[in-house]
Amino acid sequence: MVAIATLGSHCALQVLKGAKDEGIKSILICEKKREKLYRRFPFIDELIIVDSFKEVLDQKCQLILEENKAILVPHGTLIAQMNSEEIESIKTPVFGNKWILRWESDREMKEKLMVEAKLPVPKPVSNPKDINKLVIVKRQGAAGGKGYFMAANEEDYNIKKNQLIADGIISKEETLYIQEYAAGVLAYLQFFYSPLNEELEFFGVDQRHESDIEGISRIPSEQQLKSKKVPSFNVIGNSPLVLRESLLEEVYNMGESFVDASKKMVSPGMNGPFCIEGVYDENAKFTSFEFSARIVAGTNIYMDGSPYYSLLFNESMSMGRRIAREIKIATETNQLDKITT
Amino acid sequence: MVAIATLGSHCALQVLKGAKDEGIKSILICEKKREKLYRRFPFIDELIIVDSFKEVLDQKCQLILEENKAILVPHGTLIAQMNSEEIESIKTPVFGNKWILRWESDREMKEKLMVEAKLPVPKPVSNPKDINKLVIVKRQGAAGGKGYFMAANEEDYNIKKNQLIADGIISKEETLYIQEYAAGVLAYLQFFYSPLNEELEFFGVDQRHESDIEGISRIPSEQQLKSKKVPSFNVIGNSPLVLRESLLEEVYNMGESFVDASKKMVSPGMNGPFCIEGVYDENAKFTSFEFSARIVAGTNIYMDGSPYYSLLFNESMSMGRRIAREIKIATETNQLDKITT
Amino acid sequence: MVAIATLGSHCALQVLKGAKDEGIKSILICEKKREKLYRRFPFIDELIIVDSFKEVLDQKCQLILEENKAILVPHGTLIAQMNSEEIESIKTPVFGNKWILRWESDREMKEKLMVEAKLPVPKPVSNPKDINKLVIVKRQGAAGGKGYFMAANEEDYNIKKNQLIADGIISKEETLYIQEYAAGVLAYLQFFYSPLNEELEFFGVDQRHESDIEGISRIPSEQQLKSKKVPSFNVIGNSPLVLRESLLEEVYNMGESFVDASKKMVSPGMNGPFCIEGVYDENAKFTSFEFSARIVAGTNIYMDGSPYYSLLFNESMSMGRRIAREIKIATETNQLDKITT
Repeated sequence: MVAIATLGSHCALQVLKGAKDEGIKSILICEKKREKLYRRFPFIDELIIVDSFKEVLDQKCQLILEENKAILVPHGTLIAQMNSEEIESIKTPVFGNKWILRWESDREMKEKLMVEAKLPVPKPVSNPKDINKLVIVKRQGAAGGKGYFMAANEEDYNIKKNQLIADGIISKEETLYIQEYAAGVLAYLQFFYSPLNEELEFFGVDQRHESDIEGISRIPSEQQLKSKKVPSFNVIGNSPLVLRESLLEEVYNMGESFVDASKKMVSPGMNGPFCIEGVYDENAKFTSFEFSARIVAGTNIYMDGSPYYSLLFNESMSMGRRIAREIKIATETNQLDKITT
Repeated sequence: MVAIATLGSHCALQVLKGAKDEGIKSILICEKKREKLYRRFPFIDELIIVDSFKEVLDQKCQLILEENKAILVPHGTLIAQMNSEEIESIKTPVFGNKWILRWESDREMKEKLMVEAKLPVPKPVSNPKDINKLVIVKRQGAAGGKGYFMAANEEDYNIKKNQLIADGIISKEETLYIQEYAAGVLAYLQFFYSPLNEELEFFGVDQRHESDIEGISRIPSEQQLKSKKVPSFNVIGNSPLVLRESLLEEVYNMGESFVDASKKMVSPGMNGPFCIEGVYDENAKFTSFEFSARIVAGTNIYMDGSPYYSLLFNESMSMGRRIAREIKIATETNQLDKITT
Repeated sequence: MVAIATLGSHCALQVLKGAKDEGIKSILICEKKREKLYRRFPFIDELIIVDSFKEVLDQKCQLILEENKAILVPHGTLIAQMNSEEIESIKTPVFGNKWILRWESDREMKEKLMVEAKLPVPKPVSNPKDINKLVIVKRQGAAGGKGYFMAANEEDYNIKKNQLIADGIISKEETLYIQEYAAGVLAYLQFFYSPLNEELEFFGVDQRHESDIEGISRIPSEQQLKSKKVPSFNVIGNSPLVLRESLLEEVYNMGESFVDASKKMVSPGMNGPFCIEGVYDENAKFTSFEFSARIVAGTNIYMDGSPYYSLLFNESMSMGRRIAREIKIATETNQLDKITT
């Protein structure tokens, strides 16, 4: 039998609880400083204690994983702490498609895949001089929104950028990406694509709670205007959402279109969980500003199953458990090569 | 045995999954363009493909429904796409009370029923000249909030109205309804009244997420003031809420008062699911600005059961399943006439 | 066998449903005016009807509780309606630690315990003259946030205070507490500490919905600035949240630190459910502005189990049921003295 392994952060609890629920051995690659936290959860069968997550690349760690026939479930922490070369050099089989993670990390490749998938993306603004309506300014990589800021014009952009540099939040040399700001209802659309049955499943939607931008909604305008603080977008948590049912057709279409584009651009395609992230405007038109080519932390809100998965499964099915179920079926039918890279 | 049928939108998935969970045949009246979406869900036993939902009035469609002894579960899409005469002419038995749907659609009848039910309603403003505090301006019918706007005085009203007409969002001839704006915590109170056991059940509460009004909470005041955009109220989705327990007594009282008023005004009364929609102000006083005389899409957040129903049922009970359960009991006890019109 | 009793408000439904689920007799001390509400729930085995909750101190009420070997589960309503002397004089065994409730009610003792627990607290402002950045002004006791207000400087403070006095919302003599306002993502961290197995469990997180401060987020700045209304913080309800997994280590540390400090300061310590309430700023740094030394109403959102408890229990486990489970185990193992005071 195989085992399921993941890094100790992001959605590790959900992933390993899902493994256990499917009767699969669970292994956590755990930083020493977080050992105490993860020892609290009896469904974690084995902890590989490391000083840094990069040790997953070391022979010692890979040997233990190999002995257990472990499959590594990648998540945001893997992407945040290793570069694409490192991730691609991992010898342990990676659930889904490890080659697509590079497309998530690199802003240009990301945009290329989104365009290929015909996802409606926000208009990029290539030069701060061209800012003539509200924009959001983003940084490279999966930094969790920290250092993102809004600007109404070039002057505004420069003031805020310089303030963030002075505060040590962003660095002077850093490349920043400017997009027209899409206002409306934020929606993070969570999918699972199974290469075994070639079907796309819509798992759920979440909203991110970011600090301190969320906090300004509780500060009266009168007081907001007296402060010079630049709001930030550091993700703290997530909450659940369901969509108007009339939007689901397009949700599935976007998901399938993304799966198709991925198959074309980066073999073997978008297998396993992924997320299309964006905002619905006042015409219920969706604009997508990001995707995640692996499980997102927003699925943690549904550790006991999501509203949409309760339509598909007559049991509590988290995204972590869905992954474990896929691994179990692939193991039993000798198709592990189809679901790992 | 009977079948349960509904139109393919709004809360169809929940309603038909509920039917299946209660062992009742499920039938979807499905627009061609959405066939692919609904074919994904194996709990839908039969699809009646139509070009337009109005075909539910055609003999062909009604015959299929009749052969299946189908009961039609009405929802927001039925009301949005057919006028009251059409709805009342449906020959298929309609779950609940089809005669009350007219009272939901017509703004004046709606207010009459709300007043009869002693629901605390916002003060109407009959003339734009009389706007002396913040108001919200609404349109006729269940348009999902699109084209609603706020205004602080007559000038503001005219500027925004003209802008929305110019943008093609509302038409020049349209009658608009002005109400004093009730600020606070939005709460959509979901109920089910069973004429079989003559009991009112409180199912749950949701909050609506509307675009792009929700988005402005994430735009700093400084930037909001630089924009001339009129926020809109297009419903995109829903999220869960529970209420302070000390508010529940009044919640039940409002629900019962609404059931009583409906019995008096529009026989056989408010049977089945309904929703009282409003806002709690800073004194925890509720003001109701709308009701829905049928299942609301906000129940979709609870497809696997709601917090309040977990007090009443020791199994996962969605509103869709509650409807199916009622139909099942009525069938077994020969009381279908009590729960349909 | 023992029984579980509680006052009819706050989280009584959840607590008594939990009792029933664990096979324990449930008793509600119920105000006459709310009898109708609570009679709706068949899991309540016995109602003791009172005119005022203070009758729980009367011999008549205590005798009934004694005959049933009842354990009283304290919650926010007990604290709001009785002073510490009264609570401490209750002869019925109280679940958890009744002596710690005084530390929750008294602002100075509360701060002392928070400092002992090394919780990061907001900077207090001792004199309105010293307000030089946004502050929040709070009242003594568990009044649910009503009458709290924000102020940007001394003048602002005086204007708003006088307005609230004029409106009869706060009294002239009342002591007000001024704290620096911590902006960001609100998070109410819910824990359970079991003295039986000496383990701390993290149950979940909720966000409070307060009126009418929540409402201002939907009022465009342009209109907000035209109004002179002082927003209030009256708690209406709660919604669910999950945290970034990387924050959990610190969450547990804060919980354990609070348990340790309580053991030192107020024997037998923080047994049973409690809550640490605060806000995550843009650096994901938590500032705690309150604690509750008993079950909080925010757990009502998880009447069917929470995301985090689904990691620990393979059954639906609300906080109410967790309490009942603890009582059941203590009864079976003759350790009731360990979990009551």
